[in-house]
Amino acid sequence: MAVYTAVDDLALTAFLHDYDIGDLLSAKGIAEGVENTNYVMMTTEGTYILTLYEQRVDAADLPFFLNLMNHCADKGIATPQPLPRKDGTLLGELCGRHAAIVTYLDGMATRKPKPLHCAELGRGLAAFHDATLDFGLRRPNALGVASWGPLFADSRDQADEVVPGLVALVDDELGVLNASWPTDLPQGVIHADLFPDNVFFIGDALSGLIDFYFACNDTLAYDLAICINAWCFEDDLAFNVTKARAMIQGYNAVRPLSAAERDALPLLCRGAALRFCLTRLHDWLRVPEDALVTPKDPRPYYERLRFHRSVSSATEYGL
Amino acid sequence: MAVYTAVDDLALTAFLHDYDIGDLLSAKGIAEGVENTNYVMMTTEGTYILTLYEQRVDAADLPFFLNLMNHCADKGIATPQPLPRKDGTLLGELCGRHAAIVTYLDGMATRKPKPLHCAELGRGLAAFHDATLDFGLRRPNALGVASWGPLFADSRDQADEVVPGLVALVDDELGVLNASWPTDLPQGVIHADLFPDNVFFIGDALSGLIDFYFACNDTLAYDLAICINAWCFEDDLAFNVTKARAMIQGYNAVRPLSAAERDALPLLCRGAALRFCLTRLHDWLRVPEDALVTPKDPRPYYERLRFHRSVSSATEYGL
Repeated sequence: MAVYTAVDDLALTAFLHDYDIGDLLSAKGIAEGVENTNYVMMTTEGTYILTLYEQRVDAADLPFFLNLMNHCADKGIATPQPLPRKDGTLLGELCGRHAAIVTYLDGMATRKPKPLHCAELGRGLAAFHDATLDFGLRRPNALGVASWGPLFADSRDQADEVVPGLVALVDDELGVLNASWPTDLPQGVIHADLFPDNVFFIGDALSGLIDFYFACNDTLAYDLAICINAWCFEDDLAFNVTKARAMIQGYNAVRPLSAAERDALPLLCRGAALRFCLTRLHDWLRVPEDALVTPKDPRPYYERLRFHRSVSSATEYGL
Repeated sequence: MAVYTAVDDLALTAFLHDYDIGDLLSAKGIAEGVENTNYVMMTTEGTYILTLYEQRVDAADLPFFLNLMNHCADKGIATPQPLPRKDGTLLGELCGRHAAIVTYLDGMATRKPKPLHCAELGRGLAAFHDATLDFGLRRPNALGVASWGPLFADSRDQADEVVPGLVALVDDELGVLNASWPTDLPQGVIHADLFPDNVFFIGDALSGLIDFYFACNDTLAYDLAICINAWCFEDDLAFNVTKARAMIQGYNAVRPLSAAERDALPLLCRGAALRFCLTRLHDWLRVPEDALVTPKDPRPYYERLRFHRSVSSATEYGL
């Protein structure tokens, strides 16, 4: 969480000349977003988020992310909507960075999601999935199942120092997942990072989905598995089946899961737990000296993985 | 610039129960304010700044700061106005910190002040001074003339390593200022830190004065001297007399300077340059290892001090 690039009044005023969104009133750098610099910006026309894309985001991916948000917002999904510049494009340049302006979404992330929030999230996720079905651009999942083996190879030597027994578990898990990962389930665009930080609520009602910078084409039900991992475990790592049931039922009410998707859910949950365990392990072992962001502990995802390995059918998730 | 304390939805919703400012819509931590944690907060009633006071601010001073802003805002000065709680007080507690909510001021700090901005600032500063004359609370200036000798004593051993010749210059300057500092000029509450970061403009018009956490009782014209130092030197350290003239004339148009104040201006400017040179030197020599804030270079204020020592009368400031 950091403001990597300082934007001043002169540069921002010039940048806004390319937009039809009124005159600048204020802009404040916010501590939101790990990869990019974000400002809350107010003009005589309204409130917006200004994002400057820092080096860690591949510029070639920006049209996918921005057009996806635009496509979904047009369909009534609560995603930020990029504002078009006068030339019709969605991307400009500010302070040497690619930059975009999107609508400001009211709402706040919730620190302690309740089952009602999980049900809302399930419905919102399914509506997002439905909305992406006719989205024309494609982006492969760079962190999909095929990446997990090579990703672990980079950290394998030190993995047991972080979590004793991790090497044996991951080696076994990679064998199972590489052999059994479903390839014939419905595909579409997934958010792929829909943690509670990235979902806004007003009271109990979902008001915003943000941070689409991991979005990609993949198995739709895998996105639900990511959310089960991210939302349905308590701080003490206990699985909360009431939340999972609420989330899955919410999802199912909007986009009914096929029998194959239901049957695959335990495996998809194992994959999702492994993916976050491995990326966190990778970052945990490579904290830059000048890090502005504290790396996340891989252990809670190791524990989730162990839980999902004990699950024999999707009924254990409340289905 | 940092968000030291993370505020979540549950704590903030509970905090707002003590206010009559509507229901929470959003709150985003902003990278503004060196000493405190600030959020832009939106409710169903409007947009506000939420401030959590961190350890570096003396809690005993908070009533002075908050009541001063309230007093000035009531008189139409463009200061943030603290929102009263239901019990009528201005200060609450949130996440273990003293916390207050103030009105949100539109406008942006300007990176390159023009003479028009300086004239606006002069008028705004004078109006602020006039507004404070009947303010009832008092706070001594902990960084006033009497503090400069002891402050320098703490850094004297290493001062010449930072700026060769600094010890001789400051020793001489302290002798002059301690002997000649005016004590009979008009007194009142001064802002004492009105750098361009702390002044908002919309276009060329002043729209906000913020960050009152150095405000104190002292010589009013000394506040103008601080602003001359902060606003009227270019990046190459050249003195811009056009800006100084605009600022002083703007001030004088609202609160006419007495002959004694005009005559004292060169000495007050020397004091202001010395004060910021010494506090910056102090911080420069004591950067904490985990510093989130880069210390400011004392050298530009050493150069300002040398400039003001060469000034023989206030006419050289454009008067």
